[in-house]
Amino acid sequence: MSGTSSVHPLDQGDPLSPKRAAFALPEGVIYLDGNSLGTLPVHVPQRVADVVSKQWGESLIRAWNEHDWVDLPRRVGDRIGRLVGAAPGTVIAGDSTSVNLFKVLSAALALRPERKVILSDTGNFPTDLYMAQGLRDLLGAGHELRLVAPEEVADAITDEVAVMMITQVDYRTGRRHDMAALTRLAHEAGALAIWDLAHSAGAFKVELDACGADFAIGCGYKYLNGGPGAPAFLYVAERHQAVARQPLNGWMGHDAPFAFDLDYRGAIGVDQFRVGTPPILSLSALDAALDVFDDVDMDVLRAKSVSLCELFIREVESRCEGLELASPRNADERGSQVSFRFAEGYALMQALIARGVIGDFRAPDIVRFGFTPLYLSHGDVVKAVDILADILATRSWDAPQFKIRAKVT
Amino acid sequence: MSGTSSVHPLDQGDPLSPKRAAFALPEGVIYLDGNSLGTLPVHVPQRVADVVSKQWGESLIRAWNEHDWVDLPRRVGDRIGRLVGAAPGTVIAGDSTSVNLFKVLSAALALRPERKVILSDTGNFPTDLYMAQGLRDLLGAGHELRLVAPEEVADAITDEVAVMMITQVDYRTGRRHDMAALTRLAHEAGALAIWDLAHSAGAFKVELDACGADFAIGCGYKYLNGGPGAPAFLYVAERHQAVARQPLNGWMGHDAPFAFDLDYRGAIGVDQFRVGTPPILSLSALDAALDVFDDVDMDVLRAKSVSLCELFIREVESRCEGLELASPRNADERGSQVSFRFAEGYALMQALIARGVIGDFRAPDIVRFGFTPLYLSHGDVVKAVDILADILATRSWDAPQFKIRAKVT
Repeated sequence: MSGTSSVHPLDQGDPLSPKRAAFALPEGVIYLDGNSLGTLPVHVPQRVADVVSKQWGESLIRAWNEHDWVDLPRRVGDRIGRLVGAAPGTVIAGDSTSVNLFKVLSAALALRPERKVILSDTGNFPTDLYMAQGLRDLLGAGHELRLVAPEEVADAITDEVAVMMITQVDYRTGRRHDMAALTRLAHEAGALAIWDLAHSAGAFKVELDACGADFAIGCGYKYLNGGPGAPAFLYVAERHQAVARQPLNGWMGHDAPFAFDLDYRGAIGVDQFRVGTPPILSLSALDAALDVFDDVDMDVLRAKSVSLCELFIREVESRCEGLELASPRNADERGSQVSFRFAEGYALMQALIARGVIGDFRAPDIVRFGFTPLYLSHGDVVKAVDILADILATRSWDAPQFKIRAKVT
Repeated sequence: MSGTSSVHPLDQGDPLSPKRAAFALPEGVIYLDGNSLGTLPVHVPQRVADVVSKQWGESLIRAWNEHDWVDLPRRVGDRIGRLVGAAPGTVIAGDSTSVNLFKVLSAALALRPERKVILSDTGNFPTDLYMAQGLRDLLGAGHELRLVAPEEVADAITDEVAVMMITQVDYRTGRRHDMAALTRLAHEAGALAIWDLAHSAGAFKVELDACGADFAIGCGYKYLNGGPGAPAFLYVAERHQAVARQPLNGWMGHDAPFAFDLDYRGAIGVDQFRVGTPPILSLSALDAALDVFDDVDMDVLRAKSVSLCELFIREVESRCEGLELASPRNADERGSQVSFRFAEGYALMQALIARGVIGDFRAPDIVRFGFTPLYLSHGDVVKAVDILADILATRSWDAPQFKIRAKVT
């Protein structure tokens, strides 16, 4: 089966296979890193060119009204909202994931003034923990960031906890938390739940409203394909919008930004979570990238994601000695990535990249492969494992050029 | 003289006149709003297209190393630094002006823990005041934002003041504060000085280092022409870099971002003021836009700016009844804009825009005209005043369609 150019049996009748043509994938590359930087949708360059040359270049300042730039963060937010199970008006796009975490964590803590503990886990992406540490130190007054192992989160939700702040999918292992169950436990303990959807949005069906999440944040440049450093997003549950307030009181979050009052009077709702002037060029790229999702059924996407991941695990475990599965074996406990441990993982990944199989490495020993059902096929999975098996069989990873550490790993 | 197509005498021998060809100015427009949104440099679309289609589209995740995306905020920062008199390594580009104000104000207050007063003036751009209000409320503990009239700042610098936070050029009137004098007074009182350069950077020569400024922030999309919502910048004086720390502890400000430690350990220097993943598309547009300044002598630029503004004042005052100068008459006290008061200013500006003269309106009665010496000529100034005089003489501003308020004013 492997190495042939015939259609893989599992790709026959794949309803998502036409989507591959919507992406500009380089020749000779099997891209298993859409969870780090999504690929370029083919129509994005033209949209960006229009925004640069026509909207900015020709309309100039008039574009704020002519192209309704001022509401672009809401429009993009609502489009992301559909993918993460959030009602219109609850999601806004802008700033970075880190800055957005600061906003929602501040807002959540302010809703639980009598409690001081932020609960998170050691599998969270570090920037979330760093931002929480910065806020904790700024607030003082006994605030605590309490970290437990991912499997201990449920037991650590006590009535001391103000906010449970969790990234749904572990960036290293792909382990996925049960959003509904943990949110329920948090609420039963009187705490609020913040979910980081960096490796969830666009990767599988997320149901923020249905799970009762209080706040969420997420990334525009991974599975949403918004481009390098794309604007992030945040979610404020409908029931909190009348009272939730964040402290980065930028003019775009003012109730009347163009009144230029001297005193801040925050907008009601998710608009109060806006800060500065929206980044129109990069927001437009993200907006265009979301077109690809317009007709995608997230249940179909998830089914293919599971199929790709399971095939990858089967193929690797049957043909690649020395790799140890680092992801949960049960698909229900995984996002849309599969990771393996390998002592010389850095060099192995460099050798893979040199052969056109692009994943990435996370210290100390994780090789990580993201599976994006919109542009990957089961045939790609088999070809990737062919190359991986060959690299391992020939030990070609054990070459000096693959051990030179790059600035960005 | 007016209304002809011959070269205005003051444009003869203008060393900056070739720069006009570097900008994509729409036909029939005299753009006097470069202080709100700078115009598109002609080479920016190609640069953005390359970053989208080649760097992102073809290199994908490898672009972080192949194109050194990770250091782009520093490279762009250093280029802005040259324009604002800041040594290499003291300026970083990213985030919005508002978010950057939060960072530098937090850092400055932490350097004066025994003082509680933030001093600013009522001519500051509101977002700076709003962000300071948000930080004040977050910090509690007796912090105070003290606002005085712009002309009272010097007298209000007492030994209670922790930080003097001033926008150099008033966004409505163009009134310019004396950076050297106020910074010296602040330091004599034991306070620190934060300068907002939103209407300064790229508009005239700024000398942050020479004036002894402690921190500064500024905008990428006004006189720097970086595009709508372009990344902003911030400055940390060399002498503070070993100790200054801001609380938005994003992973890109970590001393080793790719070590993925659980604990934040801030980088030393201006890198600690980075937060999230840099917005590569919009940063690249700003980077490209800065090319235009590479061979510009800021003294020459300033001389032309003064000449344009003085001509505009002379022409308006001699030909346009009913307008009252709102800007300082003395060029040394002005930035690169001229504002007039007119009771029906909103309608007047709409009528001007309809005739291709684009400035903007600021409540309650200010019509504002920005002068950007790189793409404006003295001939443009005369033509703009021809149209303004005609609109006033015919009262054509007094029409219903010019009184409909747009969403963005």
